This record gives sequence, structure tokens and C-alpha cells, in this order.
Amino acid sequence: MSKSKQIVLVTGGVGYIGSHTVIELFTAGYEVVIIDNLCNANKECLNRIEKITKNKFAFHEVDMLNKKDLSDLFNKYKFHHVIHFAALKAVGESVALPLKYYKNNIIAALNLIEVMADHGVKSLVFSSSATVYGTPKKLPITELDSIGGCTNPYGKTKWFIEEMLFDICKVDTTWSVVILRYFNPVGSHKSGMIGEDPLGPPANLMPFVAQVAVGKRPHVNVFGNDYPTNDGTGVRDYIHVVDLAQGHIKALEKLNGKCGLKIYNLGTGRGYSVLEMITAFEQACGHKIPYEIAPRRPGDLPEVYADTKLAEKELNWKSIYGLKEMCEDLWNWQQKNPEGYSGVSK
Amino acid sequence: MSKSKQIVLVTGGVGYIGSHTVIELFTAGYEVVIIDNLCNANKECLNRIEKITKNKFAFHEVDMLNKKDLSDLFNKYKFHHVIHFAALKAVGESVALPLKYYKNNIIAALNLIEVMADHGVKSLVFSSSATVYGTPKKLPITELDSIGGCTNPYGKTKWFIEEMLFDICKVDTTWSVVILRYFNPVGSHKSGMIGEDPLGPPANLMPFVAQVAVGKRPHVNVFGNDYPTNDGTGVRDYIHVVDLAQGHIKALEKLNGKCGLKIYNLGTGRGYSVLEMITAFEQACGHKIPYEIAPRRPGDLPEVYADTKLAEKELNWKSIYGLKEMCEDLWNWQQKNPEGYSGVSK
Repeated sequence: MSKSKQIVLVTGGVGYIGSHTVIELFTAGYEVVIIDNLCNANKECLNRIEKITKNKFAFHEVDMLNKKDLSDLFNKYKFHHVIHFAALKAVGESVALPLKYYKNNIIAALNLIEVMADHGVKSLVFSSSATVYGTPKKLPITELDSIGGCTNPYGKTKWFIEEMLFDICKVDTTWSVVILRYFNPVGSHKSGMIGEDPLGPPANLMPFVAQVAVGKRPHVNVFGNDYPTNDGTGVRDYIHVVDLAQGHIKALEKLNGKCGLKIYNLGTGRGYSVLEMITAFEQACGHKIPYEIAPRRPGDLPEVYADTKLAEKELNWKSIYGLKEMCEDLWNWQQKNPEGYSGVSK
Repeated sequence: MSKSKQIVLVTGGVGYIGSHTVIELFTAGYEVVIIDNLCNANKECLNRIEKITKNKFAFHEVDMLNKKDLSDLFNKYKFHHVIHFAALKAVGESVALPLKYYKNNIIAALNLIEVMADHGVKSLVFSSSATVYGTPKKLPITELDSIGGCTNPYGKTKWFIEEMLFDICKVDTTWSVVILRYFNPVGSHKSGMIGEDPLGPPANLMPFVAQVAVGKRPHVNVFGNDYPTNDGTGVRDYIHVVDLAQGHIKALEKLNGKCGLKIYNLGTGRGYSVLEMITAFEQACGHKIPYEIAPRRPGDLPEVYADTKLAEKELNWKSIYGLKEMCEDLWNWQQKNPEGYSGVSK
């Protein structure tokens, strides 16, 4: 069957990474069906995707905790693959509301896996996170490094679902599963029409920096400048969201080869410090970003970055955008949408 | 409120440990409501409990995957505590059917916790297992030893649910939760009217030994006689099921004191080898038990036994039955019920 005929279900397809991936899927010739419960996404994002692609997407507002709705969807469409983005993802909220996270993320995944098995659709890309590595014993982090020791329920949901997928694929070799462990996605689509739209104060650095740049917040808090890194601030592996989205296209090609269970880091393989990120964003936006040094946050690691050789070798994937594009594209989105999607009437 | 008025929901109350605990709860003056989906239990066991106690128990056939049924039950009764036994528990089956185990055990637990929270019943005893310790780094095993590294989905379900309970109790101090980590329960009620009734060939040593003793099977397989133990065979901490059941009564007393999250090993604190167990059973049944040495099974550990000091100190609980009673009581049950509960018309 030609790739152009393949139908891909994208769960959480109206979210940040999901929406960027939908565009890349469309461009690559896949037919895309999107579901989202819109609990943390704005339907305006779907309008934007459709404007960018000049395409109308099949969209269903489905809560994945409702297994019957999921099952009906699989009766309606003959999916070839599923990319499962849908999940609650705020680390801090997960600590405050663990049951909400365990319930939503784990039951959604179990419902999906069961419905997929029932319908013979055993081809899945699962959105995981570098957080499953817990405190890495060495850098860069490879896919063979041990996982676990996550300190927050969000991270544990990703870890537990990975463990379930390991066990399922071990005994049922008719499954093809690619687990993608994301490092720190930033930036947005070149058009500036879609991007990351956090509810409330952003928990991640770059959306916060962008909100300071646009005047919504007075300054950036830099949590700790006494880490054992070049400039004392925390180092992370930031990756352009369009690069990340491209990784999913490569993962689908892998699934088409009946790959069993595979795990890949999606990062650039190089770390940048908080201060380097702020400086890069200053160059993109053309003015200074005020910041203040604040105490370290409990649980934050000094330095995290990926070994990306496996994805390069087996997926034939590599990030192509650098720090400059990450910051420019984020700034473009932020300037055009200072209030995110909620700045427009729905 | 006096103890005699407290209503306890027992999930999986028709199972092996559940049924023995129901009797101890009744004797201790609790009002008991039993649910069970009877997927791995025989309703004849309920008849037997009622004969032993000369009491009629409220019983509801509820599948805990059906959250609405659970919620209805909490509307019907004003529970003070819940003891959550209900779970699939066959290690080997869990490896073959991981999704079944993850779905049943984890969703049931999440549904229960959510319904309990919704109804303000935040007092739980959770049946866990020594299996959560994975490969112990030292013996005896204390509750402070690290958990994880479980190699089968059954063990992982216990471990993951424990992790969820840790996170929930960390932020919501109105919960009282006692996690009981069982070592190897054996034996049966003195009456011989209830006992362990495995479906198919028993996966655990002692029910297998008893079936050999009663002539249902030709010999016991002893998996490995080259372990670094006294006689080369594996050593486990066997505990009489009535002692184990008593531990739950003590756990309820702890819950009445608003204890936050507590974890206790339930074992005797002493290990016996496979050959010692066979010899002890020979003395109970009065004849030789044929056995054959077979290869080690992957994943089996040489030696596992509990440190029970914490339960002794904080629960005021200690096992009182020895090897002799374990074997005699098991033999009594096996002789009276060579076909288990299925030997009688329902």
C-alpha cells in the first residue's frame, strides 16, 4: 500500500507537538484523523493548521477515558498507525494532582492499546520524554541508559506506560511500537500561526522568556546559577518543534517496516544553558530580556542532553534547526499571538 | 464511634486471602461488605464463610473496571475503610497477557481510589507483595529497602499502584493508607472449609505439594537444587494465611489512628527451603511426597525473607502459627476438598 493512502490517528493533535506533527504528516502525504478532548488545547489551533495546509482535517472531540468512543472511531476509520500525544503534561500540576495524572494518562493509554489490539491496528508511536531517565548517570544520555527514578507523577506516567509497552511487545511480536523520548521542544512553525500556548504562567523556560520579551511578564527567573556548568545555570537539550515533528514521520517509516519495539531520543545532542538561551532570544527579538537569579528548584538537574546517534542511524533523522531558528520562530509566534490562541474569537 | 459499627468494604473478598480476612473482620466486630467479580473465585467460598461465621454477608458481584457500579456501592453503604484485595495474581499469566494485568489491576485501583476520594472514604489497606522488592540487595528485607526492578507485569502492577499511593498521600494528608507487603501465604482456616483453590496446575509450591499428597499429581518439581542455600533449594518466608488475615485487622486499627501512609512486611521473618517444606508436609500428611529436581526457573531468587520488626512495633502484630500448623491446615483443607470448591454443586 502506498504511503499516500495510509491513515494516521493523531491523539492530542490540537496540542503543541501534535499540531506541528499534523502539518508534517499532511506534507508527507498521510491522511490524518485528529482527536483531542480540548482540555488543554484551543480549537483555533485546528483552524490555523487548516489554513497553513489548505486542507480540512477529520477532527473528533474524543475523551480517551471513554473507551467506547475510541472504539467507535476505530470502527469508522481503518487506521494504519496511531501517534499518541494526548496526555496531561504539567510537572508541577502532576505533583499537586497525582490521581488526575495517573488516571488521565494511564487509562487513556491502556484504552488506546486495547482498542488498537481489538481492531488489529498494532502500529504505534508513543510520545515519551527524557524525564523517564530520572537523574542520568552520565552524559550524553543514550537509549540504553536505565530509566526510572522519576520524581513526579507526570514523569512516572510516561515511564509506566513505557514499561507496559515493553511487556506487551515482548510477548506479542505483531506489535510495532516506536517510543520517542523528547528532550526540550521549543520554537514554532515558520508561519508563526501555531505555537506553544501555555495556560497560565509557563512552566518551561522559553515560553516564559517570550512572554517577558513581549511585555507580559516583568522578568525571567533563572533558577540557580551555581550548578556545575559553564555559566552556573542549568543546561538542557532544546530542539525545534518542527524537527521533533519530522522525527514522527521517520518513526512511521520505521513502523512500516514492522520494527517491534524501538526507542529513540529526539534531541539535538547539544546542551545550552539558561543564560545562553536568553542571550539567543535577545538576538532574535532585538532587545534585552531582564532576568533575576532565583534559588534552585527541587528536582531540577544541572545538565541534560541526548545522544542522538541511534535516531540518526536507525531513523535517518537528525535535527536541522539551530538555536537561531528556535528563537526566531518562537518570537514570530509570540509577536503575532501575544495572547496565544485565546486572543482570537473562536 | 465504636469499632463494632465500622463498615469495611473488602474487594476480592471471595479470594484466598480475602475470605480468610473476612472471617477475622467478622470476629473482630466489623461489619463487612464483600465485592468480587468471581473471575478467579468460587461463590461456594462465600457459602463456606457464612457457615463458619454463622453470619450472612452483604455480597455484590461487582467488576471494579465499572466505575459506576463502584460509585453506586459507595452511595449505598457508608464505608469506614476499604481493604483492596481484588487483583489478578498469576505471575506466569501476567507475562503472557500483560495488557490484561495492567488493565485489570491498575484501572481497578484507580477507579477505587477515585470513588473513595469522591465519597470522602480515605482509609485504605492495599494488598501488595514482597515481589515489589525485585532482587533484594540484602536479607532480611526491610520496608526501607528500595522497590522496583520487578520482572513481571503482575509485580509491576503492585509496584506502580504503590508509587501512585505514595504520590497521592504526599499531597493529600487526609488519606490513611496501609500497604501490606505479603511474603508467601500458605495454609487455611482451622475448619478446613476454606482454602487456596488454584485454577489449573498451582503456580505456588505448597498447593502443588498438597495436590501431590492427595494423589492428583505424580510428583513435585523442585526448581533448582544448586542455589547458595543450606540444601541448595530456594528459601521463602511462608506465612499462615490466618496470621496474614490478622495483620489486616491490625492495619485497620492503625488506619483508625489517621496514620498517613504506612508500609509493613507481613511474613514470619524466617525462611524455609523447598525441601524443608516438603518434609514438613510429609509429617502433616503422614506419607512421603515424591519430588524431582528440575532446572531453575528464570527470575527465581535464591532466598527471600522479611524483616518483620516494623509490623511488630507499629502494628503490634506478629505471626503466631508455625510450619506445623501451615502444613496441617493446608492438608486438612486439601483432604476435605480434593477438587477445591468446584467439587461441590454451587
